[in-house]
Amino acid sequence: MNSFEIKRRVEYYEADVTGKLALPMILNWAVLASKLQSDALGVGQSTHLARGLGWIILQYEVHITRRPAVNEEITIQTYAAKYNPFFVRRPFAFFDAQGEEIIRVDSIWTMIDINNRRMARLPQDIVDKYQAERVKQIPRMPNPIKILPNDDMISKDYHVRYLDIDANQHVNNSKYFEWMQDVVPTEFLETHEITSINLKYENEIHLGHTIQSQVVLGNQSSKHRIMLGDVVSAEAEFNWRNVTL
Amino acid sequence: MNSFEIKRRVEYYEADVTGKLALPMILNWAVLASKLQSDALGVGQSTHLARGLGWIILQYEVHITRRPAVNEEITIQTYAAKYNPFFVRRPFAFFDAQGEEIIRVDSIWTMIDINNRRMARLPQDIVDKYQAERVKQIPRMPNPIKILPNDDMISKDYHVRYLDIDANQHVNNSKYFEWMQDVVPTEFLETHEITSINLKYENEIHLGHTIQSQVVLGNQSSKHRIMLGDVVSAEAEFNWRNVTL
Repeated sequence: MNSFEIKRRVEYYEADVTGKLALPMILNWAVLASKLQSDALGVGQSTHLARGLGWIILQYEVHITRRPAVNEEITIQTYAAKYNPFFVRRPFAFFDAQGEEIIRVDSIWTMIDINNRRMARLPQDIVDKYQAERVKQIPRMPNPIKILPNDDMISKDYHVRYLDIDANQHVNNSKYFEWMQDVVPTEFLETHEITSINLKYENEIHLGHTIQSQVVLGNQSSKHRIMLGDVVSAEAEFNWRNVTL
Repeated sequence: MNSFEIKRRVEYYEADVTGKLALPMILNWAVLASKLQSDALGVGQSTHLARGLGWIILQYEVHITRRPAVNEEITIQTYAAKYNPFFVRRPFAFFDAQGEEIIRVDSIWTMIDINNRRMARLPQDIVDKYQAERVKQIPRMPNPIKILPNDDMISKDYHVRYLDIDANQHVNNSKYFEWMQDVVPTEFLETHEITSINLKYENEIHLGHTIQSQVVLGNQSSKHRIMLGDVVSAEAEFNWRNVTL
C-alpha cells in the first residue's frame, strides 16, 4: 500500500467568514492529494488522458472534528485502500501541526471513458502502481437519506458559472458543496457547524445550466439535493452541531 | 524600500476551463503577498485590527502577458512604492520559473476605520515599516471608461453568496472579477483572452444583496459595472486579444 502526503497552509481566500477553511476546499485538497500521488507514481493525468480515461468521484463521506484556521499548516495523507475492476476506495486524513487528525474523508472513485462519459474498467497497470488491496466487493457507503415528497423544503436556483468549470472541463466537484451550503439560511450557518457530510453524485451538470439546490433542514441534520429539472444531479446529508458564539 | 516575495504553484482548482490560472486568483495572490509582507514586518492584521483599522484596495490595474498553467510555479514580488497620509501605491510582479515577468498588478490602498467604514489616516509607525517613499500626491490611475446611457448592455443578476464573504467579513475583492467575467457570453470568453484590467471599487456590497453585473462588449475591450440598485459598486475596463484555438 503506497501512501502519500501533501502539506497545505490555509490562506485567507480559502477561508469562509468564520476564518476557517471553507468546506469546498476540503474536497479540493483531498482531490489534489490524490492527483499529486498519481503524478508521483507516474500515472498522472497525461497517462490516463492518453487512453481517453478520467478519474471521477462517485461518493464521499467527510467527518470534521474541527476545521483549520487561516495560517494553519495541514498535512493530508491518502492512499488507495481497496479496488475491484471498477471501483477504488480512497481515504484521506487531515492532520494539524500537532499531529491530531482533524478531518477525515472517505471516497469511492471510478474511471470513465471521456468521449462517451461511460464507466470504464480500471486499467490493471495503472491500478497496480497504488498497491491497493484487490477485493471482490468495495465496501459500500450508506446512501444519503432522501428528501421525501412531503418534506418542508427550501429551494434556490443557481446558474452554473464560467468559473464553476475547471480544467477537467466539467463542474468542479466542490461546487456542489457550495450550492448545498449556500441555500441554508444564514442564521443557521452562523449558529451551526458541519460535523459530517455524505454526498453522492448522480448526473453531470454543464455550463449554462441552471440547477436547483434544495434543502430540508432539521435541527442537527439536513438533507440536500441538486436538481437539473426533474433529474437528480447529487444528493447529500449533512450533520451539524450547535456553536456558541 | 522593503520588497518581499512569495511562491505559489497553480493547482487544478485555481485554474479555469482553459487550464490557466483563473482571473480572480491573480488578485488573491497579490493580496496574499501583501498580507504576508505585513506579517513579516510585524504589522499584520492583529496590529491594525487592534487599532480598529483595516487595509482596503481602492483601485487596481492588471497587465497580463500570459496566465500561468496548472503545475507552474510562480514568484510574486511586491513592495509599497509611495505613500502619503491617506494612500499607498503598491505594485506586484508575477514571474515564471524562467524569471520572465508574466503578470503585473498595480494597486492603490487605503485604511478604513472598521466600525464606521470611513477612510482613516495611515498610522506613521505602520507605514514606516515598509520603507516606502513619502510623496505629496500618489500618482493616480486613469478611471475606467464609463458605461454610457445609450450603450448596448448585457446585464445579469448575482446573489451575494455565503462563500463570497471572506474572513475579513466582507465580499472578497476577487468576486467582483468573477461577476464581471461571468456576464460575458461564453463564445466570447472562448475566443478572447484578457490582456489588461482596470478596476475601481466605489461602494461596499454585503451578504444577501443581489447585484447586477453589467457589460458593454466591444471587439477588443469591455466596460463593466457592478450595480446595487442605483448605486455603482465597482467599475472596470478590460482589454482583450483574440485567441486562435
